[in-house]
Amino acid sequence: MEYETPLFFHVMAYAADADRDVVDMVSGNPDWEPPEALREGLRAYADFDADRFQYPPSHGLRELREEIAARRGVDEERVVVTNGGGEANYLAMARALERDAGDEVVLTDPVYPYYPGKTTMLGGRPRYVSAGTDGQLDPDDVRSVASEDTAAIVVNTPNNPTGAVYPESTVRELVAIAEAHDAICVVDEVYDHYDLSGTFTSALSVDSDRRIVTNAFSKTFAITGFRVGYAIFPPHLVEDAKSRHMLVNVAGSRPAQYAVLQALRNTDPAYHEANRELLRERVATFTDALDRAGADYTRPDGAFYVLARFEDYPGTLENTERLIDEAGVAGMPGSAFGETCEPWLRFALVTPRLEEAAERLAAYFA
Amino acid sequence: MEYETPLFFHVMAYAADADRDVVDMVSGNPDWEPPEALREGLRAYADFDADRFQYPPSHGLRELREEIAARRGVDEERVVVTNGGGEANYLAMARALERDAGDEVVLTDPVYPYYPGKTTMLGGRPRYVSAGTDGQLDPDDVRSVASEDTAAIVVNTPNNPTGAVYPESTVRELVAIAEAHDAICVVDEVYDHYDLSGTFTSALSVDSDRRIVTNAFSKTFAITGFRVGYAIFPPHLVEDAKSRHMLVNVAGSRPAQYAVLQALRNTDPAYHEANRELLRERVATFTDALDRAGADYTRPDGAFYVLARFEDYPGTLENTERLIDEAGVAGMPGSAFGETCEPWLRFALVTPRLEEAAERLAAYFA
Repeated sequence: MEYETPLFFHVMAYAADADRDVVDMVSGNPDWEPPEALREGLRAYADFDADRFQYPPSHGLRELREEIAARRGVDEERVVVTNGGGEANYLAMARALERDAGDEVVLTDPVYPYYPGKTTMLGGRPRYVSAGTDGQLDPDDVRSVASEDTAAIVVNTPNNPTGAVYPESTVRELVAIAEAHDAICVVDEVYDHYDLSGTFTSALSVDSDRRIVTNAFSKTFAITGFRVGYAIFPPHLVEDAKSRHMLVNVAGSRPAQYAVLQALRNTDPAYHEANRELLRERVATFTDALDRAGADYTRPDGAFYVLARFEDYPGTLENTERLIDEAGVAGMPGSAFGETCEPWLRFALVTPRLEEAAERLAAYFA
Repeated sequence: MEYETPLFFHVMAYAADADRDVVDMVSGNPDWEPPEALREGLRAYADFDADRFQYPPSHGLRELREEIAARRGVDEERVVVTNGGGEANYLAMARALERDAGDEVVLTDPVYPYYPGKTTMLGGRPRYVSAGTDGQLDPDDVRSVASEDTAAIVVNTPNNPTGAVYPESTVRELVAIAEAHDAICVVDEVYDHYDLSGTFTSALSVDSDRRIVTNAFSKTFAITGFRVGYAIFPPHLVEDAKSRHMLVNVAGSRPAQYAVLQALRNTDPAYHEANRELLRERVATFTDALDRAGADYTRPDGAFYVLARFEDYPGTLENTERLIDEAGVAGMPGSAFGETCEPWLRFALVTPRLEEAAERLAAYFA
């Protein structure tokens, strides 16, 4: 299994080159507006004194770290502001693997493809636990593969690609399994503002020195291109993580950090509720069409994605391309997310033309 | 030898906490204005459509890569836009070390402290070649330590901390030594717009598939906090470098990349000449004062720094702190840059209060 992006780029390019109009449901880029305060932050930055164009503190602007720490109820010394969720997960997994406490990384299948990519790059070995296409993970299955070789257990809730939101008991048990095997439980919560079920529990609620929580403002504020994320480390792991961050990136981009700080301070909760409501409507519209197409599908409890399986139409790359050419809808082949997903296609609900795509699929498969 | 920053932060904090006024000559942050076009780029960004707030291409905005490729005379496929020069060097050194072609990294002494930090983090072993405090490297000294264990030769011209600018023959010979030992010559040219001597030659002028050139706009446009840099790889190394970049950072910050693109397109060469002229004046002012103080010093041919040695006053951390308290001038202890520099202090010429600092040093040591 390769990480997502080459396949992702291939499908995007194929859709762009198609001879017909195609609705893009490939990428996970929000299509809604960022908060106005974020735009205002950028506008204000253009006129700041030149000294604010120089290095921010390596682990993030002090006020941004304070704001994050206060919201998450942790000591600010434990917060490292990163270049998006991608670097946050990289730092967390590197820290887990460089402790000489095993080289296996327990991942779910279906999996977010960057995790196995990072695991291999960092010299670790992925070990998969089946979660099924509903994405719910049985902690006993994780327990049965955990051993002294386990360096990390890496999970994502709300989940990409399944839409699963783990109950509190799952999060609690995963952390306990990590503790029992001197492993680190890395919980990527980048979709936490897109919990459509009201049941999401952050792993921060489980007190443990074997748990790292990663997050980003990429989805929260619809700014995947700004690259501002963070990781919250246990005290005994944070200094080495800061060192790696410094040696790899020195610091993240300062205007982006400032704009995020303004958005955090000045964005009404209604902004997030409106985005969730939009997603709930899109889930309903899209799954109605899938019903008419006679498809199996997951109904997401969170995040932006629906996995769908059409009769006699496995989610291969070939069929993905055929769907682009014949139906005018671009999804992602399920194989990008592991063996379990091979018969499935993933559709991202982040297009203003979702209704049109739904109609096209219903007409094509009905 | 640790990488620079902890010591750097320690000295900065000590200076900030001092009971008296202190001129900061510690950091390498330019104190001059960024180009106006860069500010305009940021201002314009605030009003862009929301789709431009989403992921840029992983290896950089297409137009920025094209602009860099055209200016540097290379194929754009070889350019990876990075999160500053820090990530560019990290990617280059990682690529050199992961080829199973040795684990030694040849570095100079004096050295820019991030290089040994990155070497160790990446599992390599630093091997030092003395360059003396004038910073000029004898290629024969590099040749005598190069072997089949050599993975990379990492140099920096114009040089931090010595101010040396390598003649073309040195650059050419270093690349040839790398070629002879299946090593990669990494040339960090981040100070290329601050060549005060007119003798700087980019390593891009030496055609080789064993040479990586790294650079950044941090110093070029006085924006160390924006984090936009790049690396130019030989064709056979670029794909793996792009993969690592994607797996670590996904992409760099898009508004910062756009602002840099505007600065590249709309900044007059006079901007750079004025900055160089300012530095030349500061070099003269500062070294005049060092003459009066009876100090030895390097007269930089490029970059922002002067190494100085005062009689009976070795550049220890203790003496650095004493200089802050008694003279009101903060420099960096030479030990941060390797054994050769231990008797020396490094002063960064990037403060508007340079004249005052020079007077204070002259008065204190005279």
